[in-house]
Amino acid sequence: MTARSTAEARVGDPVGSIDTPALVIDLDAMQRNLARMAEFAGKHRLRLRPHAKMHKSATIAKLQIAAGAVGVCVQKVGEAEALADGAVSDIFISNEVIAEAKLARVAALAGRTKLAIAVDSPLGVDRLAQALKAAGSMLDVFVEIDVGHGRCGVAPAAAGALAHQVVAHGLRFAGLQAYHGRAQHQREPAEREATVRHAVSQVRAALAGITAAGIACPLVTGAGTGTFAFEAASGVYGELQAGSYLFMDRDYADNTAASNAPTFEHALFVKSQVMSCSTSHAVVDAGHKSHAIDSGLPRVWQRDGLEFANGGDEHGIVHRRAGSAVALPALGDTVWLVPGHCDPTVNLHDHFAVVRGGLDNGIIEAVWPVDARGKLT
Amino acid sequence: MTARSTAEARVGDPVGSIDTPALVIDLDAMQRNLARMAEFAGKHRLRLRPHAKMHKSATIAKLQIAAGAVGVCVQKVGEAEALADGAVSDIFISNEVIAEAKLARVAALAGRTKLAIAVDSPLGVDRLAQALKAAGSMLDVFVEIDVGHGRCGVAPAAAGALAHQVVAHGLRFAGLQAYHGRAQHQREPAEREATVRHAVSQVRAALAGITAAGIACPLVTGAGTGTFAFEAASGVYGELQAGSYLFMDRDYADNTAASNAPTFEHALFVKSQVMSCSTSHAVVDAGHKSHAIDSGLPRVWQRDGLEFANGGDEHGIVHRRAGSAVALPALGDTVWLVPGHCDPTVNLHDHFAVVRGGLDNGIIEAVWPVDARGKLT
Repeated sequence: MTARSTAEARVGDPVGSIDTPALVIDLDAMQRNLARMAEFAGKHRLRLRPHAKMHKSATIAKLQIAAGAVGVCVQKVGEAEALADGAVSDIFISNEVIAEAKLARVAALAGRTKLAIAVDSPLGVDRLAQALKAAGSMLDVFVEIDVGHGRCGVAPAAAGALAHQVVAHGLRFAGLQAYHGRAQHQREPAEREATVRHAVSQVRAALAGITAAGIACPLVTGAGTGTFAFEAASGVYGELQAGSYLFMDRDYADNTAASNAPTFEHALFVKSQVMSCSTSHAVVDAGHKSHAIDSGLPRVWQRDGLEFANGGDEHGIVHRRAGSAVALPALGDTVWLVPGHCDPTVNLHDHFAVVRGGLDNGIIEAVWPVDARGKLT
Repeated sequence: MTARSTAEARVGDPVGSIDTPALVIDLDAMQRNLARMAEFAGKHRLRLRPHAKMHKSATIAKLQIAAGAVGVCVQKVGEAEALADGAVSDIFISNEVIAEAKLARVAALAGRTKLAIAVDSPLGVDRLAQALKAAGSMLDVFVEIDVGHGRCGVAPAAAGALAHQVVAHGLRFAGLQAYHGRAQHQREPAEREATVRHAVSQVRAALAGITAAGIACPLVTGAGTGTFAFEAASGVYGELQAGSYLFMDRDYADNTAASNAPTFEHALFVKSQVMSCSTSHAVVDAGHKSHAIDSGLPRVWQRDGLEFANGGDEHGIVHRRAGSAVALPALGDTVWLVPGHCDPTVNLHDHFAVVRGGLDNGIIEAVWPVDARGKLT
């Protein structure tokens, strides 16, 4: 583990010394989450390839691999480059790349690390093959199918032809990318199970087409923190891509948990400080430049009588909930926030302050860089 | 102007070469906006101190000062430090700072640049005075009053006592910070005018209290892109803090313009590329890690028949609007997006690609760093 202090967080100092706003990992909670997911995957004899678009950290990716993960997923070429630079050895860009300049970077990266990528168009396969040929490198190619999300991916009926094209170009067809993003955030387990049941039917249809094309499909990969237990039970998925389980944001915690899935704890927080007060509210120094609000506002941690309201880019407004008699925090007080969505929140910060021993009295054990922060291309 | 190429944008290359997603300034449009606001302030004999929390760029701050601005505002100590490092000479932290470690940085910075800060509590004034005494430095202090926004600032009736405390500590009382954030986004000019009328009444009440305390108030500063013409007409504001006028985001363009204000053009764009297609939609490589969505989704630029839908962290989904027969963009096509909110969008990027000659056939004239990107503390 790296242990590089910053001006905002010095290794060995108490948690109270961390300057605000700051992204803080409760390391004990994170390690429990890490172990629970590794245990689940092991018990179900499934490969685990957590999504590193969530944490963007080579240090964390390597902790996941050390705990049994086969590698990680990312969404961007720049993320893959940043993690490879941090010695992460097995990376799947679970997304399409169509720009020739980016494909040249993909091909170069494939020459120095184990790499995979997703495709969903004949043009994409042609350009990928061309870039790999020019670089003299090779990688694994997954055909992405749309399992109902309505974003990327070919229709299941088209998977056989695209897999055939991959093979015809002499590329390694590695299987199906089959992820349903919206399913993750359906609140009730029965809804999520039904959505995954439909996704599985789409996977089966694609598999039939691939078999009919005379091609073997080595693996079906997908699933997220909201649904992975259902994909695990499906019999068709061989690899799980859940990422958020490690940090567990407010939005995932708002899901009603599925009975067949392990439970995870909040391990990622934004530490904020009250910098203005009135009789009606307190203002903290964390706004939506410190935490993403695409999935709703943060929750005030362990202060149930307090509610966070949007105060703009640099401010958060803390109110008493209706009917609550709890005291408002005072000027200078620390307020811990559980972000609504961990992935884009992490992307707003350069470092994690990593705390051992809890948020009240813990010690800064390490400071980890967010290696792939802002790696958009 | 700096002209430092990056891998994604090389100075002298055509706009089409910029790798996506990327933050792009239409320099011609930006310079017209710059001139229009400078002209407005000059005509009304008002000081202009644009908010640099919006662009976070020392280069742009210096262009604004060269065009007549007296200096810039920021919200964070780290922003002030980054701009001072970039040779911006007059900076107002228009926000409260309560942490002693941060106040020590404020006092140090006051030793090397002309600096001002806002206060809204006796504790804040005490700590500020202590930090300045320890550093042997001085700065301008504005008392912030709550003019109706309900965030920071003392009640107008308390302004006199706080100004008295500032003076009693031997600090320079520089005036009132009086900004109404929510007023900026009221859609109709009559609503915004009414809100500013109320804000002005609050300012007058505060001024009466300060006069009663035997203190002269040198300046009232505030106003934003949505309302500045009303503050300009009020007779009490001496300085305007509008920032977004320079880039003009989708949300500000959704306001019905006031007849007494100059109009501004969109000058900030996210360049994106179609990386997946189906018959029903196109998927671009820009999601809400590329553009902030706190004030709503981006608009597709000059393609009125197309609508942008949220595709998550890394994707945007482009649909045809109901009833439109426009062709969807094809795989590999460029799609230009007007961000919903410029400030937090800029904060997601490390650089601006600065284009001269328009988005269709222009040339990259410069690449400017987002100097204060991620400066949260």
